[in-house]
Amino acid sequence: MDNITFKPIGIIYTPYSQKEDTPIQGCFAQSNKGYIELNPEFAEGLQDVQGFSYLILLYYFHKAAGYALLTKPFLDKDKKGIFAIRHYNRPNPIGFSIVKLYRVRGNILDIGGVDMIDGTPLLDIKPYVPQFDIKAEAGNGWYQNASELSKYSPKE
Amino acid sequence: MDNITFKPIGIIYTPYSQKEDTPIQGCFAQSNKGYIELNPEFAEGLQDVQGFSYLILLYYFHKAAGYALLTKPFLDKDKKGIFAIRHYNRPNPIGFSIVKLYRVRGNILDIGGVDMIDGTPLLDIKPYVPQFDIKAEAGNGWYQNASELSKYSPKE
Repeated sequence: MDNITFKPIGIIYTPYSQKEDTPIQGCFAQSNKGYIELNPEFAEGLQDVQGFSYLILLYYFHKAAGYALLTKPFLDKDKKGIFAIRHYNRPNPIGFSIVKLYRVRGNILDIGGVDMIDGTPLLDIKPYVPQFDIKAEAGNGWYQNASELSKYSPKE
Repeated sequence: MDNITFKPIGIIYTPYSQKEDTPIQGCFAQSNKGYIELNPEFAEGLQDVQGFSYLILLYYFHKAAGYALLTKPFLDKDKKGIFAIRHYNRPNPIGFSIVKLYRVRGNILDIGGVDMIDGTPLLDIKPYVPQFDIKAEAGNGWYQNASELSKYSPKE
């Protein structure tokens, strides 16, 4: 199958300069803050974004280094299939995060609950739409036994 | 910023051969079915996937044709910023869908609630994890006034 080429549309800035300091998921660090600097040429595409309280970000795990099909997730001690975990070392290192939107000012978006490394290349922004994206009865697979996760109770 | 290159890891097969027939979102067609044929070399990465009831798919909108920063969404008559809608004609045409997982058999995944066109190149599979992905208090921006959406009440 042919290669597919994308080009970053902006950069995500966060408080985390090292992989080791970066939260495993935004839900573990809901009060942190970061911002997106969208390339000015795309700023017009931000119209109507302000009305959403959360955004879906797709980005490039630019610090990823290869992958293994079986990998130890951060929340468990045993290896799992790479498609059953969220690890950044994956066949196509595309990151997915749902972040809180605080404010849009020109080509800058102030966001919260960030879980990516500082300087991450952004590929896409989509609105988080509850009717599309909430699957209330979803099971959580092996995560139900992850001890760190069981300590966490979602406040939002 | 530099180009980023990905390679499809498989193909998504659905009942929809034309854009016009394809549901706007999977929540509007929850009973439909499709399947993923993952390239056999990645099959080992499906270990532990079976435990999840929903999967996040990232894929390439291979029928997209350019983009406009202001575009009319399928659920409204007025143009919106491209980052406030889910339209496939976007700067980086990466699709995002949450699908129901029925069964994993070898390198084939039987899925439901599909909203992509038949033959779509797949980029990534991630588990849908309620603790990470449900934002119960999220607002729904301009969608709250979309008449088609207001007729739809999420059953799941």
